[in-house]
Amino acid sequence: MKATPVRLHTENADFEAAFRERLHWSAETDAAIEQRVADILADVQARGDAAVLEYTERFDGLPADSVAALELSQAELKAAFDALPPAQREALEAAAHRVRRYHEAQKKASGESWSYRDEDGTLLGQKVTPLDRVGIYVPGGKAAYPSSVLMNAIPAHVAGVQDIVMVVPTPRGEKNPLVLAAAYVAGVSRAFTLGGAQAVAALAYGTATVPKVDKITGPGNAYVASAKKRVFGTVGIDMIAGPSEILVLADGTTPPDWVAMDLFSQAEHDELAQSILLCPDAAYLDAVQREIDRLLPTMPRAEIIARSLNGRGALILTRDMEEACAISNRIAPEHLEVSSRDPHRWEPLLRHAGAIFLGAYTSESLGDYCAGPNHVLPTSGTARFSSPLGVYDFQKRSSLIEVSEQGAQTLGAIASVLAHGEGLQAHARAAEMRLKG
Amino acid sequence: MKATPVRLHTENADFEAAFRERLHWSAETDAAIEQRVADILADVQARGDAAVLEYTERFDGLPADSVAALELSQAELKAAFDALPPAQREALEAAAHRVRRYHEAQKKASGESWSYRDEDGTLLGQKVTPLDRVGIYVPGGKAAYPSSVLMNAIPAHVAGVQDIVMVVPTPRGEKNPLVLAAAYVAGVSRAFTLGGAQAVAALAYGTATVPKVDKITGPGNAYVASAKKRVFGTVGIDMIAGPSEILVLADGTTPPDWVAMDLFSQAEHDELAQSILLCPDAAYLDAVQREIDRLLPTMPRAEIIARSLNGRGALILTRDMEEACAISNRIAPEHLEVSSRDPHRWEPLLRHAGAIFLGAYTSESLGDYCAGPNHVLPTSGTARFSSPLGVYDFQKRSSLIEVSEQGAQTLGAIASVLAHGEGLQAHARAAEMRLKG
Repeated sequence: MKATPVRLHTENADFEAAFRERLHWSAETDAAIEQRVADILADVQARGDAAVLEYTERFDGLPADSVAALELSQAELKAAFDALPPAQREALEAAAHRVRRYHEAQKKASGESWSYRDEDGTLLGQKVTPLDRVGIYVPGGKAAYPSSVLMNAIPAHVAGVQDIVMVVPTPRGEKNPLVLAAAYVAGVSRAFTLGGAQAVAALAYGTATVPKVDKITGPGNAYVASAKKRVFGTVGIDMIAGPSEILVLADGTTPPDWVAMDLFSQAEHDELAQSILLCPDAAYLDAVQREIDRLLPTMPRAEIIARSLNGRGALILTRDMEEACAISNRIAPEHLEVSSRDPHRWEPLLRHAGAIFLGAYTSESLGDYCAGPNHVLPTSGTARFSSPLGVYDFQKRSSLIEVSEQGAQTLGAIASVLAHGEGLQAHARAAEMRLKG
Repeated sequence: MKATPVRLHTENADFEAAFRERLHWSAETDAAIEQRVADILADVQARGDAAVLEYTERFDGLPADSVAALELSQAELKAAFDALPPAQREALEAAAHRVRRYHEAQKKASGESWSYRDEDGTLLGQKVTPLDRVGIYVPGGKAAYPSSVLMNAIPAHVAGVQDIVMVVPTPRGEKNPLVLAAAYVAGVSRAFTLGGAQAVAALAYGTATVPKVDKITGPGNAYVASAKKRVFGTVGIDMIAGPSEILVLADGTTPPDWVAMDLFSQAEHDELAQSILLCPDAAYLDAVQREIDRLLPTMPRAEIIARSLNGRGALILTRDMEEACAISNRIAPEHLEVSSRDPHRWEPLLRHAGAIFLGAYTSESLGDYCAGPNHVLPTSGTARFSSPLGVYDFQKRSSLIEVSEQGAQTLGAIASVLAHGEGLQAHARAAEMRLKG
């Protein structure tokens, strides 16, 4: 088996076309999936628990007498944690601790209420409050990641959310003990072994057993993504995730096997995952390819890695690091490693990325698990307009306005003119009534 | 014509049912609209300018030889501003100034980059950057509000967005001079007289003439809302707005004609708009009803006001102010007036609202136009999970991580355990490679 990411050179005439072709990924929705999801949502909205039970039996092969029987008790979550090998227990707790600390700093930096008063005594500001109740979707099966439980639940917890309801499908009743343990460590309030569009529907509309939430976060398959998109508005949602990607900007000073393994760590997720290396040094690209060849046979997930690198990977020779940064901005990658001796020289040039990993020691995998920042990041170029999951996703803001009697004189005159201009006379009169005679 | 909002009393046995019925509003999507919008989006994506021109002629009765001919020049925007009566010019500028000042404070309070270093030298933080280019949808026709231009464009400008592209339909070529002038005052970069799903498509996908944007904000009709929801993911969007609402909590100390006019100012938008007054004093509710009766005949938009108040309005007698606050939290209103002598006593009890207007002098209309905070607010209970439009909607965040050599030792050990637990060996190896031998 060979993994040979395509080699591109920005100086070549066909670079632009080849580069676009490699980047192409379409989030096209499948009309058949959309229709089935719409039906499931309507059914759960109409029939509640009964519909949820039917779909869970049909899709997960998990029959149950009641949705209550699908709830995981706190005792069961704790038991899962207690039964872990000590190294896993400690690692989960250490990761949770660091993630919590980072998100506390985030809350302090950007998630506190503020206000100021004008000269005339008018108060203006914003009050920041947590959401009351959120739902966290955790995928089951092959992509059951306990780290995702931490990354979704801890920011909610730090934000002050009182009720964190987790859903996780357990096909044929198979539970992942690490996921249950992570739910315990992260402080999940309630957990149900539900998945798919039916779980999203239960959270969005509420059933007799599953409480209605205010927002649903977490990744899922095409059904889950379609369901989340459809309930958006009834509840809040985070983002719709596409395949995961890494872009490595290398100046050629990082050991090439480190970079090869970083590319693997993205590729091993999924054959649609994308790993791209940009470097101005052709010899370094050769060296990384040699390490890919040498290391691939040692990887348990070699087949997925090879499919991903062959189908979507690329090693790109750039004219210089500046050009590499410009290309990175076009891609707006989910994960961006600046594997350079001088990462702070390049960081200011990088405008769009979910997370920026600076320097040779900062492998993406450290960020995925335990550095502290969130690993739920915008994919497929959406870093152009969206952000990592954070405390701010579990808070909302209310404007605060207290106009003083004096302030009402100035503001009333302005509002009156503009309201009349818009033909909204009641708006104008409401302002004028506050003017002193 | 009479406007008689339903009278409810929380002590009555039928209160709960009557209250729910009054609140009911469904954002049900219309399958026919959805399909037409999907077709328009696909067509604009495939045929670009040509499709945009056809739809603009068909839906807006506005033929043109090219999309370029539908662009409004900066000179035309400035001319519209210069031609306004001085009072309107000054009011627009004064409102823009105050809105800018508020959003600058907002940026300072919650929109700046931050970072910290661990004991081992590891750097963690977030870099906050503006979006490159945004699209602002401004409705035309009966709901053409220049104030909305300010409220969308100014936060984008304050965030540092370089390109602000406005679209506004001008049915049969009729331009609203105040909207053009507001675009000039707010610093819109480019403006096109386009509307509907075709305008949303042009902004989301780009055409030969209309630049592709990163995010689209601004209200619109059912077609626009459906189009925004559908392009979400390709670009960012703000929220999907429902009918506008006001909730007034009154302790009975505000002149009742002020409160009546505040209810009117919401009702005059649209017959689906909702105005609700909560008060523990029955005599005060009677007084407000008397003012409604007295003032209604004086209002140019009396018919819309009456339809809105009769169909969706309510005057609710509560046991006390605490209960009024609890009911307000259930509604999560877009606009919440605390018309009380002691608004700061009640404000801490109010958990969900788009904007909170404190004290008798703070009419909603002052906030709509010029107090400073944004008037684009979450409607239909979505204040439970979303926030006013703000500078943060035009920024995105990138996590920053720089793990020191020492930090890589601690973090690598944790990441290795967790990655093996998830069956992701390349993740584990990437971390292990950074461990000192």
